[in-house]
Amino acid sequence: MTINPQNLLERLIACPSVTPEAAGTLELLGRELEAVGFAVTHLRFEGEGSYPVDNLFATRGTGGRTLLFAGHTDVVPPGDLQQWTSDPFVPRVTDGKLFGRGAADMKSGVAAFVAACSAIPESAGTIQLAITNDEEADAINGTEKLVRWMADNGHHFDFALVGEPSSAETLGDSIKIGRRGSFSGVVTVKGVQGHVAYPHKANNPLPVLAAILTALSTTKLDDGTEHFPASNLEVTTVDVGNPTGNVIPGAGTLKFNIRYNDTWTPETLANWVRAQIASVDAKGCAVTFQVSGVPSRSFLSPLSDDIDTLSDAIEDVTGRRPDYSTGGGTSDARFIAQYGPVVECGLVGPSMHKADEHIAITDLVGLTAIYETFMGRFFAVDMS
Amino acid sequence: MTINPQNLLERLIACPSVTPEAAGTLELLGRELEAVGFAVTHLRFEGEGSYPVDNLFATRGTGGRTLLFAGHTDVVPPGDLQQWTSDPFVPRVTDGKLFGRGAADMKSGVAAFVAACSAIPESAGTIQLAITNDEEADAINGTEKLVRWMADNGHHFDFALVGEPSSAETLGDSIKIGRRGSFSGVVTVKGVQGHVAYPHKANNPLPVLAAILTALSTTKLDDGTEHFPASNLEVTTVDVGNPTGNVIPGAGTLKFNIRYNDTWTPETLANWVRAQIASVDAKGCAVTFQVSGVPSRSFLSPLSDDIDTLSDAIEDVTGRRPDYSTGGGTSDARFIAQYGPVVECGLVGPSMHKADEHIAITDLVGLTAIYETFMGRFFAVDMS
Repeated sequence: MTINPQNLLERLIACPSVTPEAAGTLELLGRELEAVGFAVTHLRFEGEGSYPVDNLFATRGTGGRTLLFAGHTDVVPPGDLQQWTSDPFVPRVTDGKLFGRGAADMKSGVAAFVAACSAIPESAGTIQLAITNDEEADAINGTEKLVRWMADNGHHFDFALVGEPSSAETLGDSIKIGRRGSFSGVVTVKGVQGHVAYPHKANNPLPVLAAILTALSTTKLDDGTEHFPASNLEVTTVDVGNPTGNVIPGAGTLKFNIRYNDTWTPETLANWVRAQIASVDAKGCAVTFQVSGVPSRSFLSPLSDDIDTLSDAIEDVTGRRPDYSTGGGTSDARFIAQYGPVVECGLVGPSMHKADEHIAITDLVGLTAIYETFMGRFFAVDMS
Repeated sequence: MTINPQNLLERLIACPSVTPEAAGTLELLGRELEAVGFAVTHLRFEGEGSYPVDNLFATRGTGGRTLLFAGHTDVVPPGDLQQWTSDPFVPRVTDGKLFGRGAADMKSGVAAFVAACSAIPESAGTIQLAITNDEEADAINGTEKLVRWMADNGHHFDFALVGEPSSAETLGDSIKIGRRGSFSGVVTVKGVQGHVAYPHKANNPLPVLAAILTALSTTKLDDGTEHFPASNLEVTTVDVGNPTGNVIPGAGTLKFNIRYNDTWTPETLANWVRAQIASVDAKGCAVTFQVSGVPSRSFLSPLSDDIDTLSDAIEDVTGRRPDYSTGGGTSDARFIAQYGPVVECGLVGPSMHKADEHIAITDLVGLTAIYETFMGRFFAVDMS
């Protein structure tokens, strides 16, 4: 028995699984996977100040190499329903396109890899699936805890594929072999408030804040690497909120975000920020720096035979070899990368998070074929 | 008949004349002044986007030199009544102090000069009084229009005294012979909004805003003059208001205020600000600069025999000669200065605008004596 990816995708779209509501998606996948020989474990993680999240781990086979497929079933809210041509949670096929919330990001990726797995003989090797229902929101009780649970329970892998939309314009034109990290911080400068007519009795923090802003935004972090552009800092806001034109303010704050490559860690970046602050004369002001939230680490999966094999599979199916990209935002691949090499390989994503989200059905079929072809070579199965 | 300054001050404090409500103050003064020979004109000015304001002009005598006394009867609101020991609009005398809103700023000054005038013979010369009920707020329909009306109606003066609290620590230790001007402006830098992960598609305005802030706040305006400290610019606020940590903002704004000496005019300052902005590379951003409100002009009254005479009178009454100050904020003297020499000479003001505002009754008596002694010499009256 093999699973049809379009049929599975339609059934997944019909579940309104806006984070963190799994809405039946994981039960549906569990049943499908058990029917094709997987052992399924449902895992509910909670705590750390976030809502509880349902996750699914499935594994099949015991010998040979181990391949991990990872993804998520949760979707972002549909937004203004007036912008949708039809109900976002009722799959609709028109002109070879399948419409619905999650069609691109990334119920299609999940449907494709589940369908591909169903076509591979059990004896080929070990296949694991790690599927969360919280990638779009907090991502605290999702993939990060799921892959830690896997490691704690002896479920290691040789190579991981994440089914996120990774293609730029046409299926297979790009896979992501790494992601930049994201690091945010807040710098506050406190001086002494006073009247503008008596500046000697005050200490204006804003010239110091401006000097720090200049140091942060004009000092080069690095020149980039072979696979990554140069790391980049953007100051995203500066706020004082002083409504009174004759008052020297007591404090001012700036916030920034750094998108950084694999030459940095959150720890070395924090030291770099502190060095920029220290390079500025604080003129008696008190300067504090705090990291905001939990930084996303950068990762780069080493170029390997498995990545070559994936590129071959893509070329066989689509006629083109993919670019190796590290662009875009962050994804759950950053959590997986701490346990082994991971590559994102999925559909074209321009409609994701938008109204009338959709994919081309031929792309869904193509992606399933890419996964199947790759597995055949990864496991050295005779697919003939 | 002479007027008792303490009695008059108590009756003025009993009128709750929070700007722009005259609350009977000007009628009271009109009656007192008519009783001692003044011709009184009540003038209500309105328009220019502000509320209507009551003003009073009084004059007595026709020959000899002309002395103008100026001041205001309006007071700032009492604020939190819990902070006051007793009702701010019920005068209270305790331990030689007189408490009430306006006791220092500046119903005492008005009471002192009205009382002093009542003690001077009508034949001495010409005395004018220009009293507004809007110095503390908009100041649009107050002294500025009152002195213009005076000039338009042929009421010129040789010397003007403003009864604002001018003393620093003890009565007569300081008179103000000039005031710095005040000039406020807004600078907005517009770039292109975008996602922090794709900075090449955006143009962050904040590094440019920081560079302009640095140019404005670190470039010296001047070195000061004999009677004025150096002009000074303070950036009072910087605001972007971008709540989203992964978005490069489209625009940012800074506001500043300059307190400047008599080497500058609002026009030359605006050019100076434009030059600082032009010194910064705008990196494709659009930079706009706007003057906020109407700048207050600086003024400096030339040292003269009249100022010497005032200093002599202060020394005779208090035993000390005053410093010639140009410090502090702005006052209505800036409007009067456009028509003739003006000096501010009044009480000690540390409690003004605060809860339990008060003066020492001996200071009120002393200030009345200073005004009387000065007038005797100004008009060359035989006071024996």
